[in-house]
Amino acid sequence: MASSLISRQFALSLKKNLHLSAPGCKAAPKTQVEFDYDGPSMKTSVPGPRSEELTKQLGHIQNVGAINFFCNYEESRGNYLVDVDGNRMLDIYTQISSIPIGYNHPDLLKLMSNPNNLSTLVNRPALGILPPENFPEKLTESLVSVAPSGMTRVQTMSCGSCSNENAYKAMFIWYRNKERGHNAPSEEDLTSCIINQSPGCPELSILSFMGGFHGRTMGCLATTHSKAIHKLDVPSFDWPIAPFPRLQYPLEEFTRENAQEEVEDLIVKWRQKGKPVAGVVIEPIQAEGGDNHASSDFFRGLRDIARKHGCAFHVDEVQTGGGTTGKMWAHEHWGMEDPADIVSFSKKLLTGGYYHKDEFQADEPYRIFNTWMGDPSKNLILSEVLNVIRRENLLEEVTRSGKALMNGLFELQAQYPGMLSRARGVGTFCAIDICDDETRKRILITARDKGILLGGCGDRSIRFRPALVFKEYHVHLFLNIFNDILAQLK
Amino acid sequence: MASSLISRQFALSLKKNLHLSAPGCKAAPKTQVEFDYDGPSMKTSVPGPRSEELTKQLGHIQNVGAINFFCNYEESRGNYLVDVDGNRMLDIYTQISSIPIGYNHPDLLKLMSNPNNLSTLVNRPALGILPPENFPEKLTESLVSVAPSGMTRVQTMSCGSCSNENAYKAMFIWYRNKERGHNAPSEEDLTSCIINQSPGCPELSILSFMGGFHGRTMGCLATTHSKAIHKLDVPSFDWPIAPFPRLQYPLEEFTRENAQEEVEDLIVKWRQKGKPVAGVVIEPIQAEGGDNHASSDFFRGLRDIARKHGCAFHVDEVQTGGGTTGKMWAHEHWGMEDPADIVSFSKKLLTGGYYHKDEFQADEPYRIFNTWMGDPSKNLILSEVLNVIRRENLLEEVTRSGKALMNGLFELQAQYPGMLSRARGVGTFCAIDICDDETRKRILITARDKGILLGGCGDRSIRFRPALVFKEYHVHLFLNIFNDILAQLK
Repeated sequence: MASSLISRQFALSLKKNLHLSAPGCKAAPKTQVEFDYDGPSMKTSVPGPRSEELTKQLGHIQNVGAINFFCNYEESRGNYLVDVDGNRMLDIYTQISSIPIGYNHPDLLKLMSNPNNLSTLVNRPALGILPPENFPEKLTESLVSVAPSGMTRVQTMSCGSCSNENAYKAMFIWYRNKERGHNAPSEEDLTSCIINQSPGCPELSILSFMGGFHGRTMGCLATTHSKAIHKLDVPSFDWPIAPFPRLQYPLEEFTRENAQEEVEDLIVKWRQKGKPVAGVVIEPIQAEGGDNHASSDFFRGLRDIARKHGCAFHVDEVQTGGGTTGKMWAHEHWGMEDPADIVSFSKKLLTGGYYHKDEFQADEPYRIFNTWMGDPSKNLILSEVLNVIRRENLLEEVTRSGKALMNGLFELQAQYPGMLSRARGVGTFCAIDICDDETRKRILITARDKGILLGGCGDRSIRFRPALVFKEYHVHLFLNIFNDILAQLK
Repeated sequence: MASSLISRQFALSLKKNLHLSAPGCKAAPKTQVEFDYDGPSMKTSVPGPRSEELTKQLGHIQNVGAINFFCNYEESRGNYLVDVDGNRMLDIYTQISSIPIGYNHPDLLKLMSNPNNLSTLVNRPALGILPPENFPEKLTESLVSVAPSGMTRVQTMSCGSCSNENAYKAMFIWYRNKERGHNAPSEEDLTSCIINQSPGCPELSILSFMGGFHGRTMGCLATTHSKAIHKLDVPSFDWPIAPFPRLQYPLEEFTRENAQEEVEDLIVKWRQKGKPVAGVVIEPIQAEGGDNHASSDFFRGLRDIARKHGCAFHVDEVQTGGGTTGKMWAHEHWGMEDPADIVSFSKKLLTGGYYHKDEFQADEPYRIFNTWMGDPSKNLILSEVLNVIRRENLLEEVTRSGKALMNGLFELQAQYPGMLSRARGVGTFCAIDICDDETRKRILITARDKGILLGGCGDRSIRFRPALVFKEYHVHLFLNIFNDILAQLK
């Protein structure tokens, strides 16, 4: 019956679009359709038999060690992910925080069934040399319309790692151009770089933070320090790593000053080592590393230190960006006019990329370049996602739901002090610590079998990453089930 | 009128799909539709006024130094790219060799307007943990169905650079596991890697070739040696770089043995340096570096050297793969049963990724991992592209067109010995050298204004990269216009 509903939805979108496709005809005003299930519904334990069977099949082609279960995305909608065994789960992990407005949002189905968009789906251009006519317009109404303070320029990329890799390159290029007094590179620069040698390939570094995660390609990985398994066996760079504040909850900030001093010391030390710090990269909230927060003062201080030492300041919003903190960008909570030189994004923005100040645009073409440079079909979906966020006031919803979620977590934490601690969060970007990893595993598995999909982060945290359409009643639904689970495991 | 044609095409696909969407109804047998223009048609010089206007607009958001012109992808079809000023060009560059079966192929329009595929377009999963039900099936009928000899396993990624970065990681992990005797990593391994230090982050290297191109992220860039502008100012690794054979045309192979000896010497030298070579990476034809070919004997010898020294052998088919040489993979021309340990791809395959032998699968989950791990919507298009290649016998067409193209280039080279030399190619993957870069620029610009879109590579080559639907009559159409251009510039 769910499927018939979906089919009707498809048919509806199609009918609408047969009209939409008539020349000169504008899209009918969108209506906010409620498109969600009324709660979890579990038929088997998870993974169920069909998932087990498909995992076996996929096992002949790929490593399946990380597979949770197989999904029926046609049947999934809103906050609910349906699996291939007919289990329907309230999704508070959303594909590692990458689903902005839930599954099968009617406005997205309508958009993608519009024949006027077919060409964008079948003709992927090399955006850096042959963009489509609507590229500037789509960028303007999507990414540029939510650009961070002080930034008017944006470069799209295909994924989060490519976004950070290219942001690092932009910082290295910017730094060396300063060193050269913006003169042309020397003959020695040009000949030495071809064979990976300095001065053409200089000994520059990016300063990153212990517990940070910025991706898994070799440049990004050199700034990632969350888990050994991500880094083991991959050659890396000798780059400085600063401690990230470890705050106590409720919030104290005594660690702040020390952390800032250490950053400054490292910048000086690496300059003396002959590996100057071209840029500092940091997440507004360390996500993968365990939902570690720091105070706005810490970030403001850090930004000043970077400026003082001539280092670029790169804020990685791949997981925090897109509205999940109640603002489009988590760094907006710092209340700064000049928060960063570069802000990278992916996940909920559906395309990777990075914003940057004018001075971080490469001086020559083909220095920041690849074949695809992103994907117009993702920009297309993103601009409709942003319309939905505005139309449905989703940032306010997130703030409201986030408050309800935090209050609930505080209550549970008071109720189960032996099991829960350090509840923390901004918007719905929340987390709580579990007494130990073993208990965390049991909680996550029990929750899944009761129809609640959650993810872990760090060594013993559970992270909450609902979509922006996660309303207060979803919060209460979750809290009730979560309470039962904790009572049962107590 | 072109647009009305397109609209009719859309309407047709849609009507068909209203049937297709009926439950249980199978797709009607596809018919091979000819869907192409009859020749170039130029209204303005390129870029025309509308392109200039849009370039100015985009200039407020991005570096536009590499923009050729803006395209009307709705109006483009088959081998013809239409720009926003109504110019229609025969496209022999195909978005840097990334368009497999031309623009707006009717079977792809039909596929993407099928409502049953909507969910794949609006719900992008985290493939590594929550794949869709049809994922094993789609992989099997697409990538696995064209797997290189000896390889049954494939990992999808979002772009070419991510594919090579992860292929390198797979080789490093494989190499270190051998060194550990496949025992668990030591405590020292796990603690040292978090801070980028050995033994956890070992001093291993990848051997690459002068003139090679493998991408622009920091790991890939350390193996790229085609042009200084790609590498300038980006820190790199001290990895060995071997000379690539520089063949004379018509083909002699006297350089072969030396090149192979140097590779062996470098492997020994870097082992002595304490930076052992975990893998050797090479393109079957160096594309970006200037369409440099090497003999099958050279590659066979190289593969043996890698095996002898315990190094992985990675063949990068990002540009050569997908049928453009008349075989699905260029390395098939070597006639080897065990051509490689890893084969990476992107571009014409529409998704990035790499095939690998079983032993190159990471021993643990989350070692080769990221949020998206590719994109099912690209696998969907790819499997239809492969159906079209089979249905329309496009590999045979490529072989036929390639012969005609090479014969034509040989004739022109004989006719204009002062301007053209070193005509070379396999299938339609062809190139010719121009006397100097200045003349090359003039040829490329004049050709574009006459409705022929070509690309350069290396320091003075023109590379031919038509789609697989580039037929013999397209070759002759091109040769006639090219002949006029050369006569005019002579």
